[in-house]
Amino acid sequence: MMRPEILLFGDSITQQSFRPGGWGAALADSYSRKVSLFLTVNANQEMLADVKVRGYGGYNTRWALFLLQHLFPLDSKKPPAAATIFFGANDAAVLGRTGERQHVPVEEYKENLRKIVLHLKECSPTILIVLITPPPVDEDGRNEFAQSLYGKDASGLPERTNEVTGVYAKKCIELAEEMGLRSINLWSAMQETEGWQKKFLSDGLHLTPEGNAVVHQQVVKVFSEAWLSAAEMPYDFPHHSEIDGKNPEKAFQQRCM
Amino acid sequence: MMRPEILLFGDSITQQSFRPGGWGAALADSYSRKVSLFLTVNANQEMLADVKVRGYGGYNTRWALFLLQHLFPLDSKKPPAAATIFFGANDAAVLGRTGERQHVPVEEYKENLRKIVLHLKECSPTILIVLITPPPVDEDGRNEFAQSLYGKDASGLPERTNEVTGVYAKKCIELAEEMGLRSINLWSAMQETEGWQKKFLSDGLHLTPEGNAVVHQQVVKVFSEAWLSAAEMPYDFPHHSEIDGKNPEKAFQQRCM
Repeated sequence: MMRPEILLFGDSITQQSFRPGGWGAALADSYSRKVSLFLTVNANQEMLADVKVRGYGGYNTRWALFLLQHLFPLDSKKPPAAATIFFGANDAAVLGRTGERQHVPVEEYKENLRKIVLHLKECSPTILIVLITPPPVDEDGRNEFAQSLYGKDASGLPERTNEVTGVYAKKCIELAEEMGLRSINLWSAMQETEGWQKKFLSDGLHLTPEGNAVVHQQVVKVFSEAWLSAAEMPYDFPHHSEIDGKNPEKAFQQRCM
Repeated sequence: MMRPEILLFGDSITQQSFRPGGWGAALADSYSRKVSLFLTVNANQEMLADVKVRGYGGYNTRWALFLLQHLFPLDSKKPPAAATIFFGANDAAVLGRTGERQHVPVEEYKENLRKIVLHLKECSPTILIVLITPPPVDEDGRNEFAQSLYGKDASGLPERTNEVTGVYAKKCIELAEEMGLRSINLWSAMQETEGWQKKFLSDGLHLTPEGNAVVHQQVVKVFSEAWLSAAEMPYDFPHHSEIDGKNPEKAFQQRCM
């Protein structure tokens, strides 16, 4: 019995994904008790399932590279079956403004993402990788947020702009196409909805519960289009209604072998 | 670097704990990026952290026993560091009513819980186990729920009663005391709040977001009183504000060794 382990690697939008309404928790719920028939392993081996969050608030891809060897050692006996890689919101911080320290040039962003992908593929050659672009930026929302923090000292110039972040999103999708990976263009997808600025973003950058729902739906969709469809995966053990109260052994003999 | 793996084993109240506002997701968020200094391991070994949900809706302790060898094989190389065991809501279904099939006599419930504890301790001798009693039952809420499902065919007699569930809660606490385990008397704790029936329970049995918050707070409290205090545990890697944009290596040299 194989439970696919799903890794979520990213920045604060991944780190916060287990807060109420978060997309990571929703994903864990979608795949709860689900097992994969496509992965064959020694049936006696313990197979961890589950959604594993590795979200690092404020991190860009340059800093994420320092974590790779620690988080995903090449000799791991249980590498993830699937992963989302969700960076760029910090890389796209604009030079010369308050988030400058986090800025990574867009070409380097792309190459760093490539290194992350190659490392995960080295850990786990059959891994299903989904690249997610940063969400769009609501510059008014960022300014309001900065003023709530710094009052009059806020510079008035947003440290991230929607246009610049869009350039990073494009590079992310470009890399996915080059490497034959699946991807989610969150930057574009969210902007298709009227009022996305407040509907999907809480402070111009992070996700509202509705924004989290978009990510959840998109990840479930892309996983399903690959081989990781929660709807098609069987449950690990019988549903309680299938258990005969007087002869419970029977249900477990059929399903636990 | 050791990430303690926290196992949540139980029935639907555990299975649903990653839904919006759920206590399992909140726990995963509380322990996100946290590592334990108390557990020493080979620093080169990959240590999975994280909250692992093993919730089986509708299951009683008798049926849970069938899962033990599969979910927690004795030869596991990464047994959980801590676990919540949260059964009883189904065991306490009243004989002669619609949930009869799920009923387990209270003495057997206690012995089944003991078997679960002993099995987990055999997997992991140092495991921190917390027994959680079932929540109280709002019989009016159960009746309303039955009527919403079955209309006039609903029997009018609740399939679970608060009094009977209280007997199971008492047995659960009794076992915890006998075995020197920590426990949470959710049945009592929730009833201390005025209006607990609708405030904490959505259908007389399952938890509202407020009810989930009670479980989350209690589990965090009990874990903290033992050695698993999220507040005292260090983060796995530097906070992004500690990273020097011009010399990022430095922050990682100090923290990743």
